[in-house]
Amino acid sequence: MKLEQRLDAAAITEFLNEVFPGAMEHFTIEAVGPMCSTVRMPFQPWRLRPGGTISGPSLMTLADTGMWVALLAMIGREALSVTSHLDIDFLRKPAPADVIAHTTLHKVGKRLAVGDVLMYSDGEDMPCARSSVTYAIPSSYRG
Amino acid sequence: MKLEQRLDAAAITEFLNEVFPGAMEHFTIEAVGPMCSTVRMPFQPWRLRPGGTISGPSLMTLADTGMWVALLAMIGREALSVTSHLDIDFLRKPAPADVIAHTTLHKVGKRLAVGDVLMYSDGEDMPCARSSVTYAIPSSYRG
Amino acid sequence: MKLEQRLDAAAITEFLNEVFPGAMEHFTIEAVGPMCSTVRMPFQPWRLRPGGTISGPSLMTLADTGMWVALLAMIGREALSVTSHLDIDFLRKPAPADVIAHTTLHKVGKRLAVGDVLMYSDGEDMPCARSSVTYAIPSSYRG
Amino acid sequence: MKLEQRLDAAAITEFLNEVFPGAMEHFTIEAVGPMCSTVRMPFQPWRLRPGGTISGPSLMTLADTGMWVALLAMIGREALSVTSHLDIDFLRKPAPADVIAHTTLHKVGKRLAVGDVLMYSDGEDMPCARSSVTYAIPSSYRG
Repeated sequence: MKLEQRLDAAAITEFLNEVFPGAMEHFTIEAVGPMCSTVRMPFQPWRLRPGGTISGPSLMTLADTGMWVALLAMIGREALSVTSHLDIDFLRKPAPADVIAHTTLHKVGKRLAVGDVLMYSDGEDMPCARSSVTYAIPSSYRG
Repeated sequence: MKLEQRLDAAAITEFLNEVFPGAMEHFTIEAVGPMCSTVRMPFQPWRLRPGGTISGPSLMTLADTGMWVALLAMIGREALSVTSHLDIDFLRKPAPADVIAHTTLHKVGKRLAVGDVLMYSDGEDMPCARSSVTYAIPSSYRG
Repeated sequence: MKLEQRLDAAAITEFLNEVFPGAMEHFTIEAVGPMCSTVRMPFQPWRLRPGGTISGPSLMTLADTGMWVALLAMIGREALSVTSHLDIDFLRKPAPADVIAHTTLHKVGKRLAVGDVLMYSDGEDMPCARSSVTYAIPSSYRG
Repeated sequence: MKLEQRLDAAAITEFLNEVFPGAMEHFTIEAVGPMCSTVRMPFQPWRLRPGGTISGPSLMTLADTGMWVALLAMIGREALSVTSHLDIDFLRKPAPADVIAHTTLHKVGKRLAVGDVLMYSDGEDMPCARSSVTYAIPSSYRG
């Protein structure tokens, strides 16, 4: 199965605002391509935990969002996929700054999609976290 | 190394309020024992996502909190450990209700602690999510 | 969906010998019950790595086998499931001895099954490794 | 901490043959660079499972080996690190052919190293498996 990109950044944002109002309130899609996405999480003080670093749950939400955007670009508006698995390694303390997530999809099957997400504090060249995420694709999806 | 429990639920809550104000605002420690904890996440409407289920980030935060509480009981107030790895499988849609996390520690070493967390919607007998979490223990900890 | 156990240990061994000759050559099913299994990996010198501990790949194979046995007990002979995800934490050096894997299934859905596996060196009361495993269930399975 | 590469492919193979005879018997180091490695697992019929695909344990061993080689290149001969965590997603059935593992290190700290491994059947442009691996670095290592 050779997939082609179906939605661009504007179409994804529009769709998400429709089906999940508020989901993209704290995220910006910077780029979407075939099997990949770049999503920015602008800095907000409420994301900090003691010590002045971005909280773990914020990074987990960013990983999940980056994967979701990359997947929507490929499967389109047909169906609402749900996260079935997420794992994350916290590598470096993320500074109080924007965090950018680069997602690469490794598989978009009929039932599962799997991708890796690397997250970087703005301006850094080594990631503050890595994540891999699996989405379950509903059976209404025809591929 | 044979560990014994050092802190009870009240001492853990007091310590967390000191070092991380607000961390336990949305969680209740129901029980703490040697190498285990039970933590409740009372239902709040802002935790819902479209479809009326508890959001994934809420469950991830609960898993992390359950593990943190179980670990603090064993290593005490000496040092602030940080999450280094978390993985989670979403198994069933969690109803709009309290979620209870049962954590079992499998290892508390000098440098790493590892545990499993099973999360249940209140009243259900099968888990809505499973998670395993690794904490890095700072080198100031003497065991 | 309320599942009941379909196969006992003897029926599982017979089925595995049929569809995957050799798969159980180095493993013994000690117990199978609803949503759980106990599988023993008898000690063999070729499983050792330098330092005299059981190798990581041996433990990963044991985790996968324990999960497979527990799953077959529930879904029966209908269909050959395949591992889609496995993660493992190595907790303690496993002695040159038998290793026993206790598997608990948390979900057997129409498409995915998820379980946890705890592995113990024979005679030890703390696990040498923990694992969680996901199997993809083929669409021929009717539940 | 800015690390530089300490060992090349020949030095790594020599070291591994010394400390773990046989470890590289079934693997070939194709390339090693700063924070990365490419390791080939030449096809051998005993790696097949029914259905004619490369077995899961073979891929897990390859992931672990790819990470080990990449890490040794950076930390050198000083100390023997051990795997503390490995997770793997099986994405596509690997053909009866060589499998090539591309490892990228995301962190080499004083105590932990974390990397991602993508595995490809020879000639394919999409991976048959993805893995992330964590190694614990012994305290004798000075960085």
